[in-house]
Amino acid sequence: MAKKGLLIVVSGFSGAGKGTLIRKLTEQHDHYVLSVSMTTRAPRAGEQDGREYFFSDVPRFTEMIDQNGFLEHAVYGGNHYGTPRAFVEEQLNAGKDVLLEIEVQGALQVKGRFPEALLIYVVTPSVEELRRRLEGRGTESKEVIEKRLKRAVDESDALEAYEYIVVNDDVTRCAEEIHGIVQGARCATARNKSFIEETRKALHEAFDH
Amino acid sequence: MAKKGLLIVVSGFSGAGKGTLIRKLTEQHDHYVLSVSMTTRAPRAGEQDGREYFFSDVPRFTEMIDQNGFLEHAVYGGNHYGTPRAFVEEQLNAGKDVLLEIEVQGALQVKGRFPEALLIYVVTPSVEELRRRLEGRGTESKEVIEKRLKRAVDESDALEAYEYIVVNDDVTRCAEEIHGIVQGARCATARNKSFIEETRKALHEAFDH
Repeated sequence: MAKKGLLIVVSGFSGAGKGTLIRKLTEQHDHYVLSVSMTTRAPRAGEQDGREYFFSDVPRFTEMIDQNGFLEHAVYGGNHYGTPRAFVEEQLNAGKDVLLEIEVQGALQVKGRFPEALLIYVVTPSVEELRRRLEGRGTESKEVIEKRLKRAVDESDALEAYEYIVVNDDVTRCAEEIHGIVQGARCATARNKSFIEETRKALHEAFDH
Repeated sequence: MAKKGLLIVVSGFSGAGKGTLIRKLTEQHDHYVLSVSMTTRAPRAGEQDGREYFFSDVPRFTEMIDQNGFLEHAVYGGNHYGTPRAFVEEQLNAGKDVLLEIEVQGALQVKGRFPEALLIYVVTPSVEELRRRLEGRGTESKEVIEKRLKRAVDESDALEAYEYIVVNDDVTRCAEEIHGIVQGARCATARNKSFIEETRKALHEAFDH
């Protein structure tokens, strides 16, 4: 069966708790690693280069685009964001499951280039809960909150592009659910084409006589 | 999310241990129930009506076919085999996950009628191991063994019709793997269309203003 790691894309409503879920997974199972995105936006207080993001200037970022150095990249609020390709490929080849927390737009780019990528979408238990969580942070302006809600509406139209949808009603339960999805996905026939081909060949060789 | 149970079709090489795996699942998790097939073949020593099979005569069987009483049915070795529909539907509506152990031909019939059915194929770790297990039973003639091996070759051509493939190298491990697949499948967007539709509608109603 597949020995390479899985590329796992986690998207979801802003405020659905994607970051917490991903942290939980990497803490509880050591075959998960987190891909760190690169951005041209300025670091915020407390952010550390290589932890929240790799911080880059625009010329270096666009040079990496030209060199096909990103799995996906996009512009949000006037800043570039991208997933450096080399780290992801190294980790997958080492058998690690790589978690990407990215937006729908980037997720679709990744799926186009890595058809075997596993796309999971995280939602809150309800729309009211989504609003409550966004407002509950207390760190964002009313305008930012409305913008995020609006984005949730837009994104919900792309939900079927994801193979799996999980409801984050409880972080521990939901992280285990994602873990189960990953375990199951490893057995998907669509991700085991060469194993199936080998089995078929061995059977034919052994018994077609 | 989906509250109805899942219909789980387990097929696989003869000798791959499907029966043992299914028994293990029903023993360890009480949301699994086993569908018992109906057949027109005579009971063997030790077989009990309603446990291994429901035993039927041909007229009653064909009457049930006419009344659309089977999810799938087929003829093997001159005998009818079929999955009674009523039991499966009752259990699914009660939220139980129903396990069907059937051949490829029946599995494809089920998938045609229940597109949300989950199809899992069980293989042995290797072709040599398949031969060893079939011969190891010691209960079958050389002719029967060769026939089963031949069927494995034929069936391997239909493997891609299954969503998942599992290697039964260890019954406990493999049963847990199937359990993980079922848990994951419950979150598949393809099996949660109405949940997604409702979420989308609620978002649009709340924020399109």
